[in-house]
Amino acid sequence: MTSPNYPSHECGVFAVYGHPNAALLSYYGLFALQHRGQESAGIVAHAGAQTSFRSVKRMGLVSQIFKEKDLEELAGSYAIGHVRYSTTGSSNLLNAQPLSANTSRGQLAIAHNGNLINALSLRLDLEKRGAIFQTTSDSEIILLLLAQPILKPEATHPLGALRQLEGAFSLVIMGEREIIGVRDPHGFRPLSLGKLDNAWILSSETCAFDLLGADFVRDLEPGEALIINESGLHSEFPFQTKRESFCIFEYIYFARPDSNLRNINVSQTRVRLGQELARLHPVDADLVVPIPDSGIYGALGFSEELKIPYQPAFVRNHYVGRTFIEPTQLMRDFSVRVKLNLIESYVKGKRVVIVDDSIVRGTTARNRVINLRQAGAREVHLRITCSPHRHACYYGIDFPNPKDLIANEYSMEDLAAYLGADSVGYLDIEGMVRATRLPKESFCLACFTGEYPIPFDTSFDKFMMEEQENRTSFLPERA
Amino acid sequence: MTSPNYPSHECGVFAVYGHPNAALLSYYGLFALQHRGQESAGIVAHAGAQTSFRSVKRMGLVSQIFKEKDLEELAGSYAIGHVRYSTTGSSNLLNAQPLSANTSRGQLAIAHNGNLINALSLRLDLEKRGAIFQTTSDSEIILLLLAQPILKPEATHPLGALRQLEGAFSLVIMGEREIIGVRDPHGFRPLSLGKLDNAWILSSETCAFDLLGADFVRDLEPGEALIINESGLHSEFPFQTKRESFCIFEYIYFARPDSNLRNINVSQTRVRLGQELARLHPVDADLVVPIPDSGIYGALGFSEELKIPYQPAFVRNHYVGRTFIEPTQLMRDFSVRVKLNLIESYVKGKRVVIVDDSIVRGTTARNRVINLRQAGAREVHLRITCSPHRHACYYGIDFPNPKDLIANEYSMEDLAAYLGADSVGYLDIEGMVRATRLPKESFCLACFTGEYPIPFDTSFDKFMMEEQENRTSFLPERA
Amino acid sequence: MTSPNYPSHECGVFAVYGHPNAALLSYYGLFALQHRGQESAGIVAHAGAQTSFRSVKRMGLVSQIFKEKDLEELAGSYAIGHVRYSTTGSSNLLNAQPLSANTSRGQLAIAHNGNLINALSLRLDLEKRGAIFQTTSDSEIILLLLAQPILKPEATHPLGALRQLEGAFSLVIMGEREIIGVRDPHGFRPLSLGKLDNAWILSSETCAFDLLGADFVRDLEPGEALIINESGLHSEFPFQTKRESFCIFEYIYFARPDSNLRNINVSQTRVRLGQELARLHPVDADLVVPIPDSGIYGALGFSEELKIPYQPAFVRNHYVGRTFIEPTQLMRDFSVRVKLNLIESYVKGKRVVIVDDSIVRGTTARNRVINLRQAGAREVHLRITCSPHRHACYYGIDFPNPKDLIANEYSMEDLAAYLGADSVGYLDIEGMVRATRLPKESFCLACFTGEYPIPFDTSFDKFMMEEQENRTSFLPERA
Amino acid sequence: MTSPNYPSHECGVFAVYGHPNAALLSYYGLFALQHRGQESAGIVAHAGAQTSFRSVKRMGLVSQIFKEKDLEELAGSYAIGHVRYSTTGSSNLLNAQPLSANTSRGQLAIAHNGNLINALSLRLDLEKRGAIFQTTSDSEIILLLLAQPILKPEATHPLGALRQLEGAFSLVIMGEREIIGVRDPHGFRPLSLGKLDNAWILSSETCAFDLLGADFVRDLEPGEALIINESGLHSEFPFQTKRESFCIFEYIYFARPDSNLRNINVSQTRVRLGQELARLHPVDADLVVPIPDSGIYGALGFSEELKIPYQPAFVRNHYVGRTFIEPTQLMRDFSVRVKLNLIESYVKGKRVVIVDDSIVRGTTARNRVINLRQAGAREVHLRITCSPHRHACYYGIDFPNPKDLIANEYSMEDLAAYLGADSVGYLDIEGMVRATRLPKESFCLACFTGEYPIPFDTSFDKFMMEEQENRTSFLPERA
Repeated sequence: MTSPNYPSHECGVFAVYGHPNAALLSYYGLFALQHRGQESAGIVAHAGAQTSFRSVKRMGLVSQIFKEKDLEELAGSYAIGHVRYSTTGSSNLLNAQPLSANTSRGQLAIAHNGNLINALSLRLDLEKRGAIFQTTSDSEIILLLLAQPILKPEATHPLGALRQLEGAFSLVIMGEREIIGVRDPHGFRPLSLGKLDNAWILSSETCAFDLLGADFVRDLEPGEALIINESGLHSEFPFQTKRESFCIFEYIYFARPDSNLRNINVSQTRVRLGQELARLHPVDADLVVPIPDSGIYGALGFSEELKIPYQPAFVRNHYVGRTFIEPTQLMRDFSVRVKLNLIESYVKGKRVVIVDDSIVRGTTARNRVINLRQAGAREVHLRITCSPHRHACYYGIDFPNPKDLIANEYSMEDLAAYLGADSVGYLDIEGMVRATRLPKESFCLACFTGEYPIPFDTSFDKFMMEEQENRTSFLPERA
Repeated sequence: MTSPNYPSHECGVFAVYGHPNAALLSYYGLFALQHRGQESAGIVAHAGAQTSFRSVKRMGLVSQIFKEKDLEELAGSYAIGHVRYSTTGSSNLLNAQPLSANTSRGQLAIAHNGNLINALSLRLDLEKRGAIFQTTSDSEIILLLLAQPILKPEATHPLGALRQLEGAFSLVIMGEREIIGVRDPHGFRPLSLGKLDNAWILSSETCAFDLLGADFVRDLEPGEALIINESGLHSEFPFQTKRESFCIFEYIYFARPDSNLRNINVSQTRVRLGQELARLHPVDADLVVPIPDSGIYGALGFSEELKIPYQPAFVRNHYVGRTFIEPTQLMRDFSVRVKLNLIESYVKGKRVVIVDDSIVRGTTARNRVINLRQAGAREVHLRITCSPHRHACYYGIDFPNPKDLIANEYSMEDLAAYLGADSVGYLDIEGMVRATRLPKESFCLACFTGEYPIPFDTSFDKFMMEEQENRTSFLPERA
Repeated sequence: MTSPNYPSHECGVFAVYGHPNAALLSYYGLFALQHRGQESAGIVAHAGAQTSFRSVKRMGLVSQIFKEKDLEELAGSYAIGHVRYSTTGSSNLLNAQPLSANTSRGQLAIAHNGNLINALSLRLDLEKRGAIFQTTSDSEIILLLLAQPILKPEATHPLGALRQLEGAFSLVIMGEREIIGVRDPHGFRPLSLGKLDNAWILSSETCAFDLLGADFVRDLEPGEALIINESGLHSEFPFQTKRESFCIFEYIYFARPDSNLRNINVSQTRVRLGQELARLHPVDADLVVPIPDSGIYGALGFSEELKIPYQPAFVRNHYVGRTFIEPTQLMRDFSVRVKLNLIESYVKGKRVVIVDDSIVRGTTARNRVINLRQAGAREVHLRITCSPHRHACYYGIDFPNPKDLIANEYSMEDLAAYLGADSVGYLDIEGMVRATRLPKESFCLACFTGEYPIPFDTSFDKFMMEEQENRTSFLPERA
Repeated sequence: MTSPNYPSHECGVFAVYGHPNAALLSYYGLFALQHRGQESAGIVAHAGAQTSFRSVKRMGLVSQIFKEKDLEELAGSYAIGHVRYSTTGSSNLLNAQPLSANTSRGQLAIAHNGNLINALSLRLDLEKRGAIFQTTSDSEIILLLLAQPILKPEATHPLGALRQLEGAFSLVIMGEREIIGVRDPHGFRPLSLGKLDNAWILSSETCAFDLLGADFVRDLEPGEALIINESGLHSEFPFQTKRESFCIFEYIYFARPDSNLRNINVSQTRVRLGQELARLHPVDADLVVPIPDSGIYGALGFSEELKIPYQPAFVRNHYVGRTFIEPTQLMRDFSVRVKLNLIESYVKGKRVVIVDDSIVRGTTARNRVINLRQAGAREVHLRITCSPHRHACYYGIDFPNPKDLIANEYSMEDLAAYLGADSVGYLDIEGMVRATRLPKESFCLACFTGEYPIPFDTSFDKFMMEEQENRTSFLPERA
């Protein structure tokens, strides 16, 4: 599979402790988090110590995967769930999460949002100690680390093994007697705590609390491990403290508009991104047209700031499925029209601003400009509510190879010409940060700036090859 | 199945004559018409005279139903297609369309949008003449009528059998050498002609032409039968002329916003419906909030007319599927939140106008008001871009029983109290018609006014029972 | 699909009147009749007058097709069922039986075992009168004939329409108030009446009665229509009397060994066929080896008559499925081994007689001889418990084209050489008939003798083409 | 699931080294071994070092599970396969074999026939060292042992880890550069080596070689590990030598009649078992009737020895599927009839001997006697070609709990009365052994004698509970 035109959503995690219908709540929770991963979903549940963990994981959407009999089988008051769009690990059922296993700590299950950057060295080290791996997912490594015996007497913290992890990880872990939520010490990805009656809930985003009618309690802190068991909440900080590096792209693109991240509403941030953009790159035009649905709030902010009428001239087809048959050569520009149809009469002879949240490869943006030109727009101005993407993300977002990013291929001057637009305007770093109303130094901006909070070790591939060549035969060595 | 809270979409029909990939075009065409029916879909295709009609019909969405091998099997340059939400006939595969058969005129297939009001008497009459029926669909009657021999020498028109039909019918018919489009003499439902290269296309709505990159040619006229064969287009008018009675609800709710009906764009009509409504029922408020997606254009018109900011405060979950497991009693107001989540921070302490296109049972509207109240809205005003629904539709729309229509249960005064709103305002008949810019007398307004273009005969049930009781035994009568 | 090496089983029919679990009994009945058709199966059931007929029909085996919820849905005390291996009509779900419809006689369903020889002319005649056909099955014609109005006052018998049928038909018909069993006047195919408590049962073979624990009552007579309704059994004879022509191949190959046909047990008849064969073509040998399972009883009779030990040296793999992947060129003689494996040690250096029930194309027989030669058999003698097949069957058996029948390709002298056998011996007509202990003139022997009880009209194809060319256009004729 | 009336088949294993279509050969091989396990099947294949192992495992029969595209995906010249009827581990896809993993030795896959008796202690020991388990199958333990680092310098044999296994195991192991076959030092279960052109094949039974047209080379010896790699065959003996203990029940019931075990043909052994039985328990009777298919060869031997005619009076229904719907109370004795139907006319008034291979719970045998009595048999004598089963098997056969074994419930005197038979005769140990023509001391006879080649440790359950209670919390211990 080639990398998509849009950055891929990553994953969402969810957990329930202490509700008689824990799996059903997880089903609704995952349903609310579906935008974070549409490839596979899973729930693991159990009914307390000494009962078996039950697991249902399948490829597809939450509403298609789980049937009533699945939820009946997932009985119990403990559950964790996961929606997934693969980043590492090929994209199949074997890698679907949560992962579960029997260990010396009893049964364990985990679900992971994020990406480890030292997965390969951890894995080779574990293999050398006799571990076997049945998936290519980096999340299996976490499960194994949790199961390792505590060898050094001074290393007494049972979660101390997680100190070996480097990278982004918001985790939910289920043991026989507890649910644990963990955020990596940089706090790349969100994880929030909620409460519904007497049950505790962990969720990647707060929109899941709204759906359940649960109350938001607080976000987990970077580096926090929150253990929930029969004696209540226990907050541990097993990691060395790091600078907070929350992914700003969660605000711009990933998160649902109705979620609050770090107590800031996402849709309102997007309106402010549009306002900042309007101030930075104003334009004299007749209409502001959003690319639905990602550009809607940015376009409203842009429209409001410049007092240019807002006009939803693109109509979205809600029935485009995963399995849609693509025409091959049959019809020119078909893929341009299949998701969005432009209502010609709105834009004919008009000066149009189109607002979207990001440009990755540029293909989609270019097609939208062509749409508008064919429909008779007099001028087309493209405005983007983030800065140009120029660098890879190693913390869980599946951007294309940097060489395929349009901002690396064209100078800002040439880009408008390539896209066929009269002008192109990106928001700058300062404007993005201002729109969030949070301090700049609390964000990871690496995909825009190339400044990575954790350096990435590029010596892996060589290391791996050497290890593999040293693998021993099954024949004994003879003298 | 109980009648839904929203009026049900009916059906969409599509046909291609003279394109080497007729079935593939039909697939895309049905995909564009998916909003008119999500229950089942089908395509029948053939490769010219003496070749077999091939048919693929299944329950589900177009993008789920058809696989590449299906389209390979549906080879040929003739095809018709159908998407369906059942009105008459129970909702299963047997009743899925197109229907096809071998007849004395060779192979025939039809797809039907609309509803016959004399279906039962036609059926009993055909049964008495020896016909058998394998579906409960009124469309099978049409197929049988087309297959009947022409008995009276003076009745020479091969389509004359269709004169017996009363009610609403936009049909596409496929014979071994022709494609035929038919609109009933009242013209209740739309049907348009388009052209793609050398191929002719018939479609319920023009948005399908946009997707295919085809050119709109013209609408079929009420009472027209357009025969397309190797010698070109042949326009016949086999019916007695009637007053045109186009369904105004196609503009208000059914049709896609990017379609043009009778050369008038639907989304622009909806903006004007919002403007008319603002003039009829103005209100002093802080925000205009649409119910997505149906209320978006009406809310924009309302907002624009009164200069009140437009704010999309409800966020829609795009992943709600047909098979979603409903919670039973578990969570209060769950169904209120599952499709739409309200972003509280927008509406807290504000005076809010919510705009939707219609109220049928009132349940949904009431829930939206509760949402807003719980989120702290100071005032909630409900504005509806059509008149109150008070009467049944016999021409193809599946409204609830009139006694369950909210406008029949409450006086306008009591309705606001019931819904919990500070005020409720419906558009009037004159405003609706003005927004379309077409003459009032060309519309069917029966669901609002109770004035039916064709009287409905209520003596059917009695008639049927008598007929069935007279059914003869298989034993011979003995003296 | 090419014609198989073995003659194809045709169909089995089953019906229940008056049992609270009529569909469940039908399920077991069809299961017992599975050997008569493995392609599709179906049951139609209802709960008495004014209740809807429910139908479940699918491709596959009875034990795979029907789930408990299917049988729950098929509630009621009336049911008919069918297992099918297609003869006419392409082999798909549309043609699966029972067929059902709404008619002027109320709801009707039928299931048919046999083949009509005047299907095409009946069909064209019905089409001219306005009938439409949705299957290519000749059974739909029967359904339509039953639905036709009785036009001539003197033709008062409601089943009189069946007089138009020519060919082989054992039918079960279900109306709203009755179950009807019909055998054609020649009595080509079996149909028996049984009783379980107060319920009446119709079945193609008596083995289904054994499974149900029902009592065999009697066979239906040729030309009998047995109407079962609330007043009991009514025997009608609507047809002109014909010479009985029971298919002798039912004894030799089709029927299950544990069934009784015309009160004669099938397996015992097969033992006698082996004895007759031993007397006609004796041989000096060490072992009699059956081809399982078809040759087992014949081999026992042969062994017993000549006092040569019986040895089941071929072991059958019971798991060969319909969807088995055939190797292409990879392994020599694979298909020879996949169903049967020869135990070499039995036959090495021995003089072996192999006994089978028939040779059609000769491929399988030839492979068995090769098996034995490769395993070191000293002599191989082939003995067949019927006469050479030389003619087509028009009454329901799917033999290959006569030109592909091995007995038409080789003289008896050359056949042993072609098959690689030391000798080949077929039973003669007189021996076959003697083994049944029934009069020769009561059998159809057409596939052996070419003497057809009903002459087959070869003018059909020409007739059909002319009719189709005369089909009228949908355009009116203009002066 | 309750234990079945018949002992359950265990598993079959298969492997190919050095054939371009290794997976396709495995498919045919597993198909030939299908009788050893019908619950799930799987193949893992690869195309040489550095290529990924591909795996297809599903529930169901071999012919249903694998499609052509599966076999295309399983490309390569290395493959191992497995058919399974679960003994330990619940019976689902997770436990289906082969199991595969990434380890410090590269990719590994194994398939296992047999049962470990020290599985639990091995597992708890591995867990304490940090291993995690994703199945409940004892075969996963073997995979993990193979992956463990060699800690002690003196323990240089890479397969030395297998020395920890106690119990029955015939294994095929696939590494990146080799295929390994292993038989436990007792040699409980069979494993044979074959050759097809230049490819080496391992199979549980020789019947798979016959199907492939491969040559049988030799059986693996007890305790042998045969490593097949690019330098040829390498035979290792990593285990301490034990007394050979081949399961005699493989001859009596499990193996296919056309297989040779230890160079002795199975069907011929069964004929001799029947002869031995006739000599030990002769009877004066009219007919010898086998219970198909298991009793066929024993009945032939019995018939031959006493010169009593052999008569297959029970007819088997070949279409009884796994998913057959059982009637509940509806019909008396239904389950007695559904698999076998007795042809009454053979046995009426006759003295009948029925021969079967074993009696476990007695239910089936009792039903067969009832069948015969109801059909009018004058005398019924039951003869069993093995000794009474009185003890559990810990080496891979799933017998019922010993307290449910009929031979433990009734004295030999009472047993005939309970079963309704005129007499019952079992073969004795000496007769069984004589029929195999192999030394008595080379067999495991534990299920008959209670003398277990490896003592079974009953302290496990207690041990497990204590371990689990000691499991540590995730909270750190505080001072």
